[in-house]
This record gives sequence, C-alpha cells and structure tokens, in this order.
Amino acid sequence: MNFQTVFVIFPNLTQLDFTGPLQVLHRLPGSTTHIAARSRDPVPSDCGLWLLPTTTFAQCPQADLLCVPGGFGVSAAMADEETLQFVRRQAEGARYVTSVCTGAFVLGAAGLLSGKRATTHWAYRHLLEKVGAVRSDARVVRDGNVFTGGGVTAGIDFAFTIAAEIAGLDIAQSIQLAIEYDPSPPFSAGSQSSAPETVRSRVEGIYARRAAEFSAELDTVLLR
Amino acid sequence: MNFQTVFVIFPNLTQLDFTGPLQVLHRLPGSTTHIAARSRDPVPSDCGLWLLPTTTFAQCPQADLLCVPGGFGVSAAMADEETLQFVRRQAEGARYVTSVCTGAFVLGAAGLLSGKRATTHWAYRHLLEKVGAVRSDARVVRDGNVFTGGGVTAGIDFAFTIAAEIAGLDIAQSIQLAIEYDPSPPFSAGSQSSAPETVRSRVEGIYARRAAEFSAELDTVLLR
Repeated sequence: MNFQTVFVIFPNLTQLDFTGPLQVLHRLPGSTTHIAARSRDPVPSDCGLWLLPTTTFAQCPQADLLCVPGGFGVSAAMADEETLQFVRRQAEGARYVTSVCTGAFVLGAAGLLSGKRATTHWAYRHLLEKVGAVRSDARVVRDGNVFTGGGVTAGIDFAFTIAAEIAGLDIAQSIQLAIEYDPSPPFSAGSQSSAPETVRSRVEGIYARRAAEFSAELDTVLLR
Repeated sequence: MNFQTVFVIFPNLTQLDFTGPLQVLHRLPGSTTHIAARSRDPVPSDCGLWLLPTTTFAQCPQADLLCVPGGFGVSAAMADEETLQFVRRQAEGARYVTSVCTGAFVLGAAGLLSGKRATTHWAYRHLLEKVGAVRSDARVVRDGNVFTGGGVTAGIDFAFTIAAEIAGLDIAQSIQLAIEYDPSPPFSAGSQSSAPETVRSRVEGIYARRAAEFSAELDTVLLR
C-alpha cells in the first residue's frame, strides 16, 4: 500500500481532534502522514502547544485520506480562501474526505457536505444544515466517501472506523491493542444525555453563546 | 487556583500519551501548562509530528502536577541524567507525580516508584518490579501522590481521574462533556483479554521482543 494521509492544521485548532486520529492512522501499514498548513511556521493549538507542519498547502502531495480537525480556529480557517481551495482541490482526488469535531464546517464551507449525512461537536450540530448537510447525532458518520466524527475525543473512534475501512479489521484491531484503546472513563458525563443536569446546563449555556457567534460567522462565509 | 502543570517531553515520545492528558488538564481553571524539554528545539514524536516545548528543564517553574509520557524514546530519556535530575527535582516539590504508558519507567529510573503501586503499558508491566514498583494491571492507579496510567489512550482516563482530584467532579465532568468523552470503540480489541486470538498473539509477539530489549536497557540504567 502506498497511501497518503493528509491532516490540515490551522491556528487554534483543538489539538486532540488532530492528535487522536494521528496516533491511530499514522500506524496504517504503507501509509505516509503529511501535516499541511499555509506555511511551515509552527501552528498554535488551543492548549499552549505549538505544532510543526511537515508541508505546506502549496507543496503537499495528493491525499488518499484528507482529514480536517476542528476547534475555535475553524472560524478563521473556513473564512480563508487559501484553506478552502486547498481542501477542495485535495478532496477532488481523495479516496476519503473526513473531518473531526467542527472541522466539518471547513468541509461544509468548501461545499463538500452538500446533501451528505454528517456529524460534528454536539453544540454545533444544528448548524450543519447551513452547509447543506443532513445532521446526524451519531459519534461517527459515513456517507459515501465522506466520514465525519463528533467532538474532540470522537476522533479516536472515527479513526478506528476509518482504519478498518482502509486496512481491514485485523490491522485496526492490532493498532487498538497496541495503543490500549479500551476506554474506561472514571465517570459518565461525556454526552448531553449522560451528564448531570447542573453540568449539562452550564456547559450548554457556554456553548450556546459560542455557537450563536459561530452561526453568524458561518453566514458571512456562506454569503460571500 | 494558581496551579502549574508540567509535562516532560523528549524525542520519540508517543504523542498521544501527552496530547490526550494535555487536552483535559489544560482546561483546569486557574492552571498554567508548561511543556518542558532539554532545550526549546522542536521535539520529534513517534508520528511524524514535531512538538514545540514552551520551556526548558533549566527554566521551568516548580510543578504542582508533573506528568511524564511514554514511548520508545523512554529508553534514551531514562538513560539521560539531565532528564532524571529534572524529574527528581520537580517531583520533590510537586503535589502530584504522574506518568502515562512507559513514562512510568522514567519515574522509576528516577527512584520515584519504590514501593509504589503503579501501572504502565500492558506489554511492559512485568518490568515494573525492576524499579521497585508493585505492579498493578488497572488502567489508572493511585498510590499516595503518585498517579500512573496504562498504555497511550489510558492517559485520557488518567487525566479525568486527576482532574476530578484537583478541581472536583463538577469541573472534571464539564470538561468531559466539552470534549465529548463518551467513547464508543467500533470494535473491541483494546486489551489482551478482549482482542481476538490472532491479533493478540501477533501484537504480543512484537511487543515481547521490544520489552526484552527494553528490559536490558533498564538494567543498564539501574546498574549505573
């Protein structure tokens, strides 16, 4: 297999949206990983950690798998024509076009989710229809060659789904054992239905304000 | 709260050992995250991704929480006196001394696991007694102020355990909802007991060879 995996990174991405899938997909036999950004300059993530791209949009080879992570930086990324052009151009030749978390809106702004079932971070799912997508509340969604994952940690489940699709169940399970992916959260608050009421209402409140801002930003991008 | 979280990074770390806990612990209210290495030069991870330290061993402030990730680079890290001295010095003043995956052996080589119950990546657990630790097969282990996590993705469960300890259940659950940590692996092969026999025997074989090499490296470090 000679398989090119391309991650798109941009300032203020949620780093685990990217680093989770990276840990899984980098181990696919015969694959090469590219981390593409506008330039080779270090890219700041949301966690104080800066990441080094391995290539630029101009120099990146054609992806077999294109993956766009999310984060607060999606607002700027989806408003950036150079980023959208890179994503559109890569998506044309890619076998798999994918996103994690709010990276779905970069795909959406590039016109790649039209008529597709898709998911994103729970707080932003109601905005998927703005980019022509059909909202799903599943953690990982496949529609044709488009795979989308939910918020942040959903990227790991997303990556194993993709790994099995690309390299087969046996390889995907081998990676799962190697990175001991046998999750055991010490408490249960990872979804709106499982979180205690006080936690849910506070976190929903914070994200509702952010989603309203994001909705306006999305309108601006889509009206251009 | 004015809380200093210090991650130690070194060449060829398994990046998710670090980036998983980083995503959780960076959100603790009132905390500051430091990513410390020997120098400010970019540090290569196991995935083709290079990470930028935010500080050096010489300049890093005293940690409240010290966290050492693992990976193949642990062999060189535990053989490096400068790294061990940093870890020992920081551990003296830290409220929490922690590791993920084979980062446990950096703590162990620094003499910090003596008599402590601890865990590490499943393939290396039998070596914990070499550093004086009492082996546990749990995913996350606490003994006094020492918290250890199992292999790679166990770092996320580890981080939520620590987050609840430091900031309380309500904050930890809020972070869990924010990063949608409601894991749903598409198949079940993340532990030796759940992996299919063919997967388990192949992956165990690969790691047995690596663990034998690592055991010899550990002997060399401990005999110095």
